[in-house]
Parts: sequence; C-alpha cells; structure tokens
Amino acid sequence: RTLRIGLIPGDGIGREVIPAGRRLLESLPASLGLKFSFVDLDAGFATFEKTGTALPDTTVEVLKKECDGALFGAVSSPSTKVAGYSSPIVALRKRLDLYANVRPVKTTAGGSATGSPIDLVIVRENTEDLYVKEEKTFEGPNGKVAEAIKRISERSSSRIATMAGEIALRRQKIRQVSPGTSHISKPTVTITHKSNVLSQTDGLFRETARQALANSKYSSVGVEEQIVDSMVYKLFRQPGYYDVIVAPNLYGDILSDGAAALVGSLGLVPSANVGDGFAIGEPCHGSAPDIEGQGIANPIATLRSVALMLEFLGEEPAAAKIYAAVDANLDEGKLLSPDLGGKATTQEVLEDVLKKL
Amino acid sequence: RTLRIGLIPGDGIGREVIPAGRRLLESLPASLGLKFSFVDLDAGFATFEKTGTALPDTTVEVLKKECDGALFGAVSSPSTKVAGYSSPIVALRKRLDLYANVRPVKTTAGGSATGSPIDLVIVRENTEDLYVKEEKTFEGPNGKVAEAIKRISERSSSRIATMAGEIALRRQKIRQVSPGTSHISKPTVTITHKSNVLSQTDGLFRETARQALANSKYSSVGVEEQIVDSMVYKLFRQPGYYDVIVAPNLYGDILSDGAAALVGSLGLVPSANVGDGFAIGEPCHGSAPDIEGQGIANPIATLRSVALMLEFLGEEPAAAKIYAAVDANLDEGKLLSPDLGGKATTQEVLEDVLKKL
Ligand SMILES: CC(C)[C@H](C(=O)O)[C@@H](O)C(=O)O
Ligand SMILES: CC(C)[C@H](C(=O)O)[C@@H](O)C(=O)O
Repeated sequence: RTLRIGLIPGDGIGREVIPAGRRLLESLPASLGLKFSFVDLDAGFATFEKTGTALPDTTVEVLKKECDGALFGAVSSPSTKVAGYSSPIVALRKRLDLYANVRPVKTTAGGSATGSPIDLVIVRENTEDLYVKEEKTFEGPNGKVAEAIKRISERSSSRIATMAGEIALRRQKIRQVSPGTSHISKPTVTITHKSNVLSQTDGLFRETARQALANSKYSSVGVEEQIVDSMVYKLFRQPGYYDVIVAPNLYGDILSDGAAALVGSLGLVPSANVGDGFAIGEPCHGSAPDIEGQGIANPIATLRSVALMLEFLGEEPAAAKIYAAVDANLDEGKLLSPDLGGKATTQEVLEDVLKKL
Repeated sequence: RTLRIGLIPGDGIGREVIPAGRRLLESLPASLGLKFSFVDLDAGFATFEKTGTALPDTTVEVLKKECDGALFGAVSSPSTKVAGYSSPIVALRKRLDLYANVRPVKTTAGGSATGSPIDLVIVRENTEDLYVKEEKTFEGPNGKVAEAIKRISERSSSRIATMAGEIALRRQKIRQVSPGTSHISKPTVTITHKSNVLSQTDGLFRETARQALANSKYSSVGVEEQIVDSMVYKLFRQPGYYDVIVAPNLYGDILSDGAAALVGSLGLVPSANVGDGFAIGEPCHGSAPDIEGQGIANPIATLRSVALMLEFLGEEPAAAKIYAAVDANLDEGKLLSPDLGGKATTQEVLEDVLKKL
C-alpha cells in the first residue's frame, strides 16, 4: 500500500519537526509493506505574509484530491491583531470536516511529573463550539460590546461521542493483546461539560453523548461525567483515573494542555485531526519562537503524531512500532531534548528513535 | 463599627461550614472594634424544591437593603435537568453586580502538592461571558442545534482589569509591610484570553485590560498575557511564577479549580464576590453530597472567605488575623480535616483556628 502524505510544516519549529516526521515514515521497516509519497504544502503566518492568506486553497485541494493523510507542524499567532489573519489549522479542521481531535497523553516509566501512571486520551470535538468564530461587535450604552456564538449540534456531539466510544473499545483491545502496557482496567468515557450553567448547549452535548454511548456496542464501556472546572481539578489530582475524556472543542483545547503538563512537556504530546477516512497528525506544541532555528525542538510529539495518523489510516502495526521505539528512547533517557532536561538535538533524538524501530 | 452579614448556607456542606464562618466572626478579638449582626437567608436547590425558586427575591432585597456583606455556602446542582432551576449564585452575582470573583490560592509551609511556593490570585470577571446564559435551541437540517452567547463588554473588562491592578498594588503593599510572607517580588497581572480564536470578544477583553492597566497608577505593575490553554499548562508547570491572573468569567472558573488542585484541596480555597461596597465570601468547593451531614467538611475555605470578605469591606487588620490563625493551624498540621489527610471534624478545625486567633 502506498500512502500519499501532505506535509504542512507551517511556522517556527514546525519546520524542524515535520522533516523528522517524514524521515520516520521513510525509515519504517519494509516488512510493514508500506510505501509513502509526499507533497509539500503551504500554510501559516509566513504564508499569510507572502500571499495574503494563511491557508491557500491549493493546500486544501491537494489534501482533498491527492492525499491519504497529512502532517501539520505549527503556526505562529501574531502578537497583535493583524487584519485578515485567521488560524489555518482551525480552518483546515473545518474545511476537511476533521471532526475529532484525538490527544493521547501517556506516561512511560521515565516520563511522569507526578509519579503516578497516566494513560488517557482526550477526544475533542473539532468543528464547532466557539470555534465557529461567528463574532460581532457593536456600540452599547457603556462602550463596545462583542459577542460570539457557541454552537453545539446534536450531530457533532453524537459523532464525537461515538468516536470516543470506539476509541475506548480499541484501547481495551490493545490492552488485551499487550497486557502490562497500561494500568487502566475498565474502558470508561468521561463526558465533560458545563451544563450547570449552559443547560441548552452543554446540556445538548451531555445528553447526546450519553445517548450515543448507550448504544449496545458500548455496553462494556463505563460512562461518567464531569463538569469542566472540576474536570481540571480532578485531572491534576488523579490523572491516572481517566481513560477516555470527550469534550466540546474549547474545553478539549484547555484540557489537553492541562494533561500535557502532567507528563512533563508539551513536546511529548501528539494529536490527530480525524475525519471519515482522513487524518492529519499534529504535535500539540506551538511554533515556539523562543527556540526556533536552534535545532533543539523535541521531535517526539511529531513522531507520535505520525503514529497516531497511521492508526487512524488503519495501519496499527506501523503505529505500534513507532510508539514502542519512542517509549524506548524515553525510558532509556540517554538522548533527550532540552525540554526534558537533556541535551540532545532534534536530529539526535530522531536518529535514536529510528535506531530503535 | 457594626457590620450586618447575610448568611446563605445553601445546600449540602454549605450548612456545615457557614455556621463555622459565623462563629469565627463572633470570636474576633474585641480589640479590633468590630461587631456583627446576622440575618439568615435562603437560596439553593432545597429552597427551589420548597418554593419554586432557587433565589427568593427577599434574599436579594435583604442583602441590598440591610447588609454590609454576606457569606454564601454552596448549592447542589441537580444531576439531571430540572425545568426552571437555575444556579442562585450566578444570579446573585449579577443581581448585586458583584463584578469580580477574587480567588487567592496560596501555599503555607505544609500545604503544597508540588513542593514549590504558590501565592497567586485569580481575578475572575463575574457577570458576563457565557454566564449571561442567553441560549436557544432549534431544529437544524441534521437534528437539534443549540447556541449560547458569549458576551464581553468594554465596561466589564475595564473594571475587572482595574480591580486586578488594585489587587496587585495592595498585595505589594502587604508584602512590604510583612516581608518574608511571600516569594513574589514584582507585582504582575497576567491577562488570560483566547484571542487567537476569538479575535473580537477575547480580543476586546485583552485590549481593554491592557488599556486599563496602562494607567500610570499601575506603572509599577508588570502586564503579561497568556492564552488560556497555555495558561493552564503553565499554571501546572510553574505556578509559583504568577501573581495576579485576570480572566473572563469561564476561563476564571476553570483556572481557579486548576489552581486549587495545586494546593492540595478545594477545601482550602476561598473566594469573594465583590462589587462596589459589597462583598460575599464563598468557599470555592461545592455542596459535596458525598460527605454531607458527617461533620467532616473542611471549614478553612469558608474561614478564609470570611477574611477575604472583611478585606473588601475595608477591615484588613481583622482579615490578617484570620489568615494568620488559619496558616498556623495548617502549618502545625495537627488538626486537619480528612481532605488533607487528617481526622479532625469541622468543629475541631474551627476551634483550633479560634484558639490561634
Ligand atoms: C493555535 C490554536 C488555534 C489551536 C486551538 O485552539 O485549537 C491550538 O491551541 C491547538 O490546541 O491546536
Ligand atoms: C456552581 C457553578 C455555577 C459555579 C460557577 O461556574 O461559577 C462554580 O463552579 C463556581 O466556580 O463558583
């Protein structure tokens, strides 16, 4: 099978980690029977400055027509408002209907800041909520007033909860095949919301998610819920408790950064933007202007994002190989990038992971 | 000076901790020259079940006409949607225009889960954002769709940022008077927002806050900003860095639970709902149905909320006495409630704090 992969480095360290992702794909053992072809695509703030748009139509077209999947690096946000600029990754998620943002956060023996094992995945709705970006500003009696729409639909809530249920089942299957790789025993989906304040929008999310998970397919999956503020509290206090967390877009955004903090560095946390038959791998970190150009960005979030993309493209054996190689690098702890307290460069970490494949 | 205080225990452990707050006020040393009178007021889910409203008009009227301040316990949220029920504390904040929710989170020698000292305060806008609760539901082409309004105004953003600036200055003054009580050296306000996605609403919050803090009154106050997701990340990774954090309502709600997790228990974290000339002290924890009626609720969040209320009513010496007595109880570590790993009852913790006044 040959997979065609779009490469969208974007800005900042995106340009340093996406090439590492490509190298990883090219270095997968031939025994997996996978070949890859690549196409370089533009997006980001530099693209905006050159062309007036942060997400050129050709990028979207090529992804739609030619590609099986893609890797997205990061984009820098301008530090003050720039007229006409708007985040290309948010637009891409919507234009390709990549309705799920899947963010696994897992400790290895060496990698936990809290000491206790964590093996959770945040399944974030990726197309609506406040990210519909429908805003307006008007003059009120006491100055300017701005309003934004938070939109929650039954359809999107249902499909994201279904995705969460599927992921809970798949994780359980993996645990059965490889016992001892996780401390989680029972598949559970925790629905996060704030329906005590937003009874209609978050209420709809909560009820629709409950309904979707009441399907007999998921009878082995426990369903719990947690109000978003106390979810953040619990996430800090007992992160090891959670398996799959499903949340509307904005809460998912916030929770996944919180979960990343628990495993030591955003540089470790991958994500996949997933739609029907398409997936974009994307490291959770940003463009990191402070370390840009120094060659010291941690490539692990990207390498894991490559694996996650492959998983959603149905290539689980390849994904498993990558996860194992990354874990081996981390557990050995010899070649770590500076965000993990090491001295290794992006290139050195990459080579070490490739050696361990 | 005699202060008249409304007592609104609400539901669950609210009924156990608010009496402790009253006892504390009655036990303040006479040398402070303060007297108190009290009025018991209803609100909460039990009130709703009895009367059909969670916040009776008389409660609001008595607070407005008779009281100088109040103490609010907690309310239980019904676990499924109940027609006509809506959170009384959210309504109270709006009806009394208590526009700031102030939530200090501070470690004592004994109290930190992370080991490093924390001394920050979250200044949460308390009247708008998604808490305007303007929602609607309609049938879309693919099922139900619900929308909520997120409203941000120049006026509210300006006054909350001004409050944050004032608090930063006041904290600095206290540090100068009592050196060695905090590791914070420079007053700083960190503006939290998500203007990379919500350029108009959160953009207005960010710019208005910057403007308000550019006033020469605050020239000694550093102004920084942090996008909400990375704020949560940083809050977990380096909580000791922060002094004052100002945020729109919902982010403030989420951040304060996150900060509470860092100091070991929600049972330690106080808040004050503050308007011009009025303040309601409120522990950050909820009604805690799991421990209700056992007499083991940690009263410290309430005792500190009493102090915070007094601070905003201009009674700083009384507040300082309470903080010191609470810190002495925690640092000694002999009489701690179960949430902190101890065995003491609400009553025993209270008596110990009173003894240390
Ligand atoms: C850059 C930003 C628009 C984006 C988001 O909010 O989704 C980022 O925080 C993320 O989590 O991918
Ligand atoms: C109970 C709930 C409505 C409330 C809020 O969201 O403000 C609570 O979480 C708080 O922080 O006081």
